Amino acid sequence: MDLKSLIRDVYDFPKEGIVFKDITTVLQDPAGLRFAVDEFEKALKDVDFDLVVGPESRGFIFGVPLAYNMNKGFIPVRKEGKLPYKTKSKEYDLEYGSAVVEIHMDAIKPGDRVVVVDDLLATGGTSKAMVELIEEMGGIVVKMVYLIELSFLKGREVLQGQDVEAIIKY
Amino acid sequence: MDLKSLIRDVYDFPKEGIVFKDITTVLQDPAGLRFAVDEFEKALKDVDFDLVVGPESRGFIFGVPLAYNMNKGFIPVRKEGKLPYKTKSKEYDLEYGSAVVEIHMDAIKPGDRVVVVDDLLATGGTSKAMVELIEEMGGIVVKMVYLIELSFLKGREVLQGQDVEAIIKY
Repeated sequence: MDLKSLIRDVYDFPKEGIVFKDITTVLQDPAGLRFAVDEFEKALKDVDFDLVVGPESRGFIFGVPLAYNMNKGFIPVRKEGKLPYKTKSKEYDLEYGSAVVEIHMDAIKPGDRVVVVDDLLATGGTSKAMVELIEEMGGIVVKMVYLIELSFLKGREVLQGQDVEAIIKY
Repeated sequence: MDLKSLIRDVYDFPKEGIVFKDITTVLQDPAGLRFAVDEFEKALKDVDFDLVVGPESRGFIFGVPLAYNMNKGFIPVRKEGKLPYKTKSKEYDLEYGSAVVEIHMDAIKPGDRVVVVDDLLATGGTSKAMVELIEEMGGIVVKMVYLIELSFLKGREVLQGQDVEAIIKY
């Protein structure tokens, strides 16, 4: 399946000059959704891991069916103040200002082998913050898988040392 | 499986006096996640439908694996300004103030049979706004399924006329 043909280009979102890769057109197509989730599974078929970690909210979209299909647990990473229990936080820089991601204190145990899943690898800021959170809790990031990589934003450079795979590249 | 035993009570979240039902402890347990998704599927096994609609962000958690398993499309409903393409919006009242949910203009076609999925039925505000959006686009809401219903908040009264099912009730 040509997944790229299901992705919609939206011009000037979230701001002028940006061409946004809209994946909702993949999700609303039953065959597209199935194919995309199965591609994540293929990327992980030889990987030994315990948990899938995905960030709010589009990381939930592929992370949960993947965890379900592969019989793993799913751990949400969320924006500040959204997780109800005790959390560990990480601040990271955005183009203007900064953002905070959080994970539950008891979500990762030392030695847990973790796969990070998200829809998009752009500048890698959120992904790097997630790696730091997971490693500070004693977890091991064994692979990071994305539906889309915007190669020109050089997110891979920020994630040096990690095993990074993208299903589609632009 | 006793799903209730996997749900964590968090006191005073999001504010004092509230006991929050934390489902992250279900998600991080592979058997719990599997059981919960399968219960959604059971609730829909005799239902004829085309699409799963789920609201940001916890509606994505069960909505996507369910759509995947049942070979349907998934349509996200999101908070204001998050969806990239043209949207239809609905404002609804909260305890203090109001909120807006949005859906892509082309997500639902007249006659589409839609199942609404979310983790929690509380006061029913978001759910009612989703029903209105779907119906105004010509869709038919054939069932609404929740992991948890907080019966004392009487969300069902707000959703009168709908086929509402909850896997766990408090």
